[in-house]
Amino acid sequence: MPFVYHRIVRFPDTDAAGVVYFANVLSICHEAYEASLGDMGINLKEFFTHPAVAFPIVHANVDFLRPIYCGDHLAVSLAPQKIGLEKFEITYEMRVNEVLAAKAMTRHVCIDASSRTKQDLPEAIIHWLDTKRRDTEEAERRKSREEIA
Amino acid sequence: MPFVYHRIVRFPDTDAAGVVYFANVLSICHEAYEASLGDMGINLKEFFTHPAVAFPIVHANVDFLRPIYCGDHLAVSLAPQKIGLEKFEITYEMRVNEVLAAKAMTRHVCIDASSRTKQDLPEAIIHWLDTKRRDTEEAERRKSREEIA
Amino acid sequence: MPFVYHRIVRFPDTDAAGVVYFANVLSICHEAYEASLGDMGINLKEFFTHPAVAFPIVHANVDFLRPIYCGDHLAVSLAPQKIGLEKFEITYEMRVNEVLAAKAMTRHVCIDASSRTKQDLPEAIIHWLDTKRRDTEEAERRKSREEIA
Amino acid sequence: MPFVYHRIVRFPDTDAAGVVYFANVLSICHEAYEASLGDMGINLKEFFTHPAVAFPIVHANVDFLRPIYCGDHLAVSLAPQKIGLEKFEITYEMRVNEVLAAKAMTRHVCIDASSRTKQDLPEAIIHWLDTKRRDTEEAERRKSREEIA
Repeated sequence: MPFVYHRIVRFPDTDAAGVVYFANVLSICHEAYEASLGDMGINLKEFFTHPAVAFPIVHANVDFLRPIYCGDHLAVSLAPQKIGLEKFEITYEMRVNEVLAAKAMTRHVCIDASSRTKQDLPEAIIHWLDTKRRDTEEAERRKSREEIA
Repeated sequence: MPFVYHRIVRFPDTDAAGVVYFANVLSICHEAYEASLGDMGINLKEFFTHPAVAFPIVHANVDFLRPIYCGDHLAVSLAPQKIGLEKFEITYEMRVNEVLAAKAMTRHVCIDASSRTKQDLPEAIIHWLDTKRRDTEEAERRKSREEIA
Repeated sequence: MPFVYHRIVRFPDTDAAGVVYFANVLSICHEAYEASLGDMGINLKEFFTHPAVAFPIVHANVDFLRPIYCGDHLAVSLAPQKIGLEKFEITYEMRVNEVLAAKAMTRHVCIDASSRTKQDLPEAIIHWLDTKRRDTEEAERRKSREEIA
Repeated sequence: MPFVYHRIVRFPDTDAAGVVYFANVLSICHEAYEASLGDMGINLKEFFTHPAVAFPIVHANVDFLRPIYCGDHLAVSLAPQKIGLEKFEITYEMRVNEVLAAKAMTRHVCIDASSRTKQDLPEAIIHWLDTKRRDTEEAERRKSREEIA
């Protein structure tokens, strides 16, 4: 089953226009990425706090399809994909009541955190990428079977 | 049963010192307040988005007892209390693995949101305050009975 | 002269990796947009606080070229461009010590804030777009003249 | 002359109630603290990014006297004070058009960042505290002289 991150929109996510502040949509996507790593048993404190190996975001983009309000129940599905020895991408779909509200993507590169030079993705991340890819493929096969039936 | 808000610490909550940024501890307390209102069936979108009646915070304070890290599982308990016709206070206790990590308080005043003049607390908030007060008293009675036994 | 927004990176902009949190780079670009509007005499309180006409972001993207640290002096230049009766785009370049650290883009659509239906860009925004476009063209002409000389 | 931090309120500082989000008022106070350190020549990158010695906040409180809006010009004055070998406090006054809008306080303790044990304040911080105390006293003397005259 593909991983879905559930999250209620909170007041600090909003701005004076009355909706979720645009950059916070990317933050919520990042939370989904963290939850997906945690779901695989990765220790988030070690992964994100002054780590030896880091995965900084080198590119992000996001499309906003509908306004998102305080109190909305978000379901964020994500599909990570290896795109090289040192890189992966994650695509995100954010839904409110099954309606797509935003789509986003983040591209990450693996670096040695002190020298900030590129290095190969470590085993744990490759395992996470493989597992999530299989989950996504499985979900797509099931969906296409349902559409045929 | 008193309401407890559960929340995993996320990367955007942290700062370059490697722990949760101090002001974000108050934001997480506010999330607990929102969750407690939602738990009583209050519509958070109406409550927080350009409302007719608002409950701005006029005072807040917070004590930081231990550093909080990315990935930590937080349990935030809160005890709201009516302190006048137009005012209430909420005290918060934030725990990581049952250890107290922060204590906070917010004081709220009820205003007409367009004129920004004080007004009496509406029925829904008084009901929330009464229910939560009874929950807190019940929890304290149970705890003191357990200590005697 | 094209408008440049100057800003020192602050501790709340950072995350536990020790650099500016990726989504905050887009927030700083938004600050530059606000500063550019303010520079044209637009009243930011009226523009951004429960306005009748709003300009929500429908797409954003950002490339991160170098890590940005607490204390860094940022210079953000921006070039807005009308791309239709109801739309404009802004491209941003963020520099630290004259070195490009990030590039970003936001696309905005003009809506009636209560019905959330599209509407034509108002006069004040068209004036801002025209002025900024002329500033950008002037800067490019000057730059190409300098390169020839 | 006592140090005053000037800052325009930006859209990401606000929430769906149309005013500055309460916890962001403390963040802006922290920015004023950073600016005051920078004003004394302290290197903010070294001070705040994975430092050997850190000054975490152990207590904060804030009173909100008036709503603060997007576009408001803030003037934040601060008065730091040594309160022990390992501790200092900073009081803040935030004004909009010379009218007090918020008052706050943060209490900091000096620790070894890796062991997180208390240690004496280093020379650079004692120098900052002394200089700012003299600035504050000087300002108060001038003010009382003006009131007499």
